[in-house]
Amino acid sequence: MKAFEATVDAPIERAEVAVREALAEAGFGVLTEIDVAATLKAKIGVDRPPMKILGACNPTFAHQALELDPGVAVLLPCNAVVEEVDGGTRVSLVDPRELMPDPRFAEVAQGAAERLEGALRETERRLTT
Amino acid sequence: MKAFEATVDAPIERAEVAVREALAEAGFGVLTEIDVAATLKAKIGVDRPPMKILGACNPTFAHQALELDPGVAVLLPCNAVVEEVDGGTRVSLVDPRELMPDPRFAEVAQGAAERLEGALRETERRLTT
Repeated sequence: MKAFEATVDAPIERAEVAVREALAEAGFGVLTEIDVAATLKAKIGVDRPPMKILGACNPTFAHQALELDPGVAVLLPCNAVVEEVDGGTRVSLVDPRELMPDPRFAEVAQGAAERLEGALRETERRLTT
Repeated sequence: MKAFEATVDAPIERAEVAVREALAEAGFGVLTEIDVAATLKAKIGVDRPPMKILGACNPTFAHQALELDPGVAVLLPCNAVVEEVDGGTRVSLVDPRELMPDPRFAEVAQGAAERLEGALRETERRLTT
């Protein structure tokens, strides 16, 4: 799975704040949040490094995609993942072009991909200044 | 996008209850919920038929997939969508084999797909008896 990814030298809590701010600037609201490590610990008792999945949605792109085919909803929203790794936090944003390879979605996926790639760069910028 | 889909002769609220119960029986907890119609109305003022995206997770399958490659997190959770359509409610469950075509995930995706397909059948059963 190709994604927009960077490892930043920041604790996961700070990386999460930065990616949320960068997503908001790019027009993506975070609508859902899953604390993966806490969920897996609670449900099946496994220990893993801290990881959160944030479900981000740009309503204009989402509406365009749903107008093309409401069946695209099973692929929404676009995820941003923060995960504690050696050296800091890995930040990954899904590439909508990979998520929606159907050519009907090419234009909207390209537009969303550019915004999300920009949000990753902005996240890095916020964490290095 | 291929998905496990059925149109049921029931209002969306009842279909949502049935799919949540069927997912729970299949070991999938619903961790997130997006009211698509309400969100698009609030954010950009568009009117669309009622639609909800439920993010469902089977912790055992999720853990197996994350052990293979934590990068799979950008594709989680598995979505169940309920949408008001002519004749009732369309229920769609993502097919994890479509979502994770990488052959490394073939076994876990097949296992999850069988459970989700079963959950769709159970949803239909609950709404026709």
